[in-house]
Amino acid sequence: MAMVVEGYPIEGISVGGQETCVVFPTLKIAFDIGRSPRRAVSPDFLFISHGHMDHIGALPMFVASRATYRMKPPFIFVPSAIREIVERLFELYRAMDQTELKHNLVSLNVGEEFQLTQDLKVRPFRTYHVVPRQGYLIYTVRQKLKKDYSNLTGAEIRNLRFSGVEVTGAVETPEIAFTGDTRSDFMLDPRNADVLRARILIMECTFIDENTTAEESRNGGHVHISEIASRADRFGNKAIILIHFSSRYSQNEIAAAVENLRSRLPGLVFALTEGFAG
Amino acid sequence: MAMVVEGYPIEGISVGGQETCVVFPTLKIAFDIGRSPRRAVSPDFLFISHGHMDHIGALPMFVASRATYRMKPPFIFVPSAIREIVERLFELYRAMDQTELKHNLVSLNVGEEFQLTQDLKVRPFRTYHVVPRQGYLIYTVRQKLKKDYSNLTGAEIRNLRFSGVEVTGAVETPEIAFTGDTRSDFMLDPRNADVLRARILIMECTFIDENTTAEESRNGGHVHISEIASRADRFGNKAIILIHFSSRYSQNEIAAAVENLRSRLPGLVFALTEGFAG
Repeated sequence: MAMVVEGYPIEGISVGGQETCVVFPTLKIAFDIGRSPRRAVSPDFLFISHGHMDHIGALPMFVASRATYRMKPPFIFVPSAIREIVERLFELYRAMDQTELKHNLVSLNVGEEFQLTQDLKVRPFRTYHVVPRQGYLIYTVRQKLKKDYSNLTGAEIRNLRFSGVEVTGAVETPEIAFTGDTRSDFMLDPRNADVLRARILIMECTFIDENTTAEESRNGGHVHISEIASRADRFGNKAIILIHFSSRYSQNEIAAAVENLRSRLPGLVFALTEGFAG
Repeated sequence: MAMVVEGYPIEGISVGGQETCVVFPTLKIAFDIGRSPRRAVSPDFLFISHGHMDHIGALPMFVASRATYRMKPPFIFVPSAIREIVERLFELYRAMDQTELKHNLVSLNVGEEFQLTQDLKVRPFRTYHVVPRQGYLIYTVRQKLKKDYSNLTGAEIRNLRFSGVEVTGAVETPEIAFTGDTRSDFMLDPRNADVLRARILIMECTFIDENTTAEESRNGGHVHISEIASRADRFGNKAIILIHFSSRYSQNEIAAAVENLRSRLPGLVFALTEGFAG
């Protein structure tokens, strides 16, 4: 069953070390591709956080599946560090599959941005893991009346606009942040302020019990749920969706750990393990 | 739900153009890997029929998944024509995933054989498709009393054996044949006689209605169900499992077409679309 959070249907599957793919069908965007689940063929924009197999493994299948349905070539965003490898992968798969595997590969770094649609842009953000990686922050961009004119009547604003004055300006709002795999350090980086106030934060949370300590989790480049609890006051998000739980945990164990975390966090906390509509 | 045919549990998923992976869990073998479904991690021996994405796409994920479960490196059999590409794919994924992705890659051609276990060997067989490809025929190998000695008593046989005479010989029985993608021509090739008398034949059957004619199906390198019906007398198999139905067909349409075919075939016909145990 898919979930609906802050007005967005969210689908996908995420198991640490096995596969991660999180889809926002109404925005036509996805974060990481995992095994390229057949039901995750819709996104026009795919954001790859890093080159670990469980996040990027079946990327060429995603492109091939869209082609069989005659969908347009997708945009695929990757950290610059792995761009060349991804290009060469597609060359090999083209030779083997003997199809074109058309797509638009975009390497984007922290500090850069890319306009997805008139209303959406993306900026990678800094994360902390054992291989080259980055998170992605999606902003909504809306034209809004400038503050200077907020006291005017509708007729006055119309007159100004007709006279050539730009009465509106673009307002960016951090909407959806996706961490990919990372240590909890991303929470402390002041440059990531927008990540912690995005409407929805999708955050990895690989470990949830004391069989793996927070210290061991850090050494592996992952978040331990205790680190979220102890920094609960930092999160200004409307919703936090936890993903990437280790495959050693049962659904019941995950549900109990998340329920426990809810008492510490002002917003709403969800766990995405697996869920697709229909 | 998994099926049991001729004493073998058979699991997997197969949709033409999307993904094909057929597993015999008790034999620890699989044919093609598709999206590397998480539940298909068990096979020690994987046979790849050809390099189309829906058959080989997520191969590196299969190897990575086994490593995360600390399972031994699998044997992966591929047509020689794609061996070098597969090697280079693994090199790129190793660089990106930063793990070893240990496996044993074996290129095997029609005319060669490979002993899998004491009781099982494999021989590729000739198929007809638009890219380099082959089917695989698994033989059981059993030591049996030679015919010359079939009239002797147990004591006489024991005496012969003690005196150094080899009273038994290896008897090969064609057990499981897997076609991968192919035109129906494979049925007419006299060198494929064992394929048509294997206990279980797993055969592609991409098209089942007249919206795609048998002629169009042949041009795409595929089997049309009408070609199986019209050659029904050729099959000496105990069971025939049809796979690779086009994604355009509903489960009901497939079930009806297979039911119709049953009246023409002496053995048992099954359709595998999706099924895993547990």
